[in-house]
Amino acid sequence: MKIRPLQNTGEMEALRQVIRATEMFTEEEEKVALELMDIFLTQPDQRDYIVEVLDEEDGALAGYVCYGPTPMTEGTYDLYWIAVHPRTQRRGYGRALLERVESLVAQRHGRLVLIETSSQEKYLPTRQFYLRAGYQEQARIPDFYRPGDDRIIYCRYLQCK
Amino acid sequence: MKIRPLQNTGEMEALRQVIRATEMFTEEEEKVALELMDIFLTQPDQRDYIVEVLDEEDGALAGYVCYGPTPMTEGTYDLYWIAVHPRTQRRGYGRALLERVESLVAQRHGRLVLIETSSQEKYLPTRQFYLRAGYQEQARIPDFYRPGDDRIIYCRYLQCK
Repeated sequence: MKIRPLQNTGEMEALRQVIRATEMFTEEEEKVALELMDIFLTQPDQRDYIVEVLDEEDGALAGYVCYGPTPMTEGTYDLYWIAVHPRTQRRGYGRALLERVESLVAQRHGRLVLIETSSQEKYLPTRQFYLRAGYQEQARIPDFYRPGDDRIIYCRYLQCK
Repeated sequence: MKIRPLQNTGEMEALRQVIRATEMFTEEEEKVALELMDIFLTQPDQRDYIVEVLDEEDGALAGYVCYGPTPMTEGTYDLYWIAVHPRTQRRGYGRALLERVESLVAQRHGRLVLIETSSQEKYLPTRQFYLRAGYQEQARIPDFYRPGDDRIIYCRYLQCK
């Protein structure tokens, strides 16, 4: 298992398949996820979106994470997307991707990682995953995504305050 | 007093002066604010950022607001920037700009307007302005902008839930 930066548009297609296989994302969300990968690949000077992918031993692409520094903050990072193919879940790949982000953020003297997710029932395993990984629910905006679908913000402070 | 869409890059320079005169924004924040105006003017097909400006009776540009639909939500809008020249404050211009946004959002069947601001002392009048205008503090992320500088999220639900 190896985590390394996304390299080319061919890999984007593989990640599209990962995103679809999770059955967690709407068409619009998939579109935005792909746009951020495209920005990472085609705008080498930008530093807002960073995409890292996870290869299995046999070289198959099993998941990815997209994160970046939150604009107009000092040391805060947003984790925008994380997805692991259902075929390869329960192998710690999600946790490895998350720890990779935290490690890269810490290298850049980042202080805080934020993750936003939905209150929908289908995201319960996702929310439990963040809690197990040391994230705390910091805020909730009722009916943010749509009526009955709240936005939940998880935080992890990397250094002592 | 009249509120209408931003029309040309010459007006952007006038708005830069408004932003600077408030002494509320960092250089980076000013840069981002101008980038959003530029997107509004140069990408007529985009609908993410909408910029409305306030003209005084004599035609002078006294303030502006930038808002737009929050990506991946149904009916939620973000108010990204609002600024009124200090020379013309206490005339209800800020409130007029805010009400203009709420009215345009309601026309598009929007449900919810979000505004984010900082916990810094210098934003106290801004926070009081949002509270008086019917916004509620919904969430707070400690140390979000920098250590000691929290992110506060205000919400106004436009319709009964």
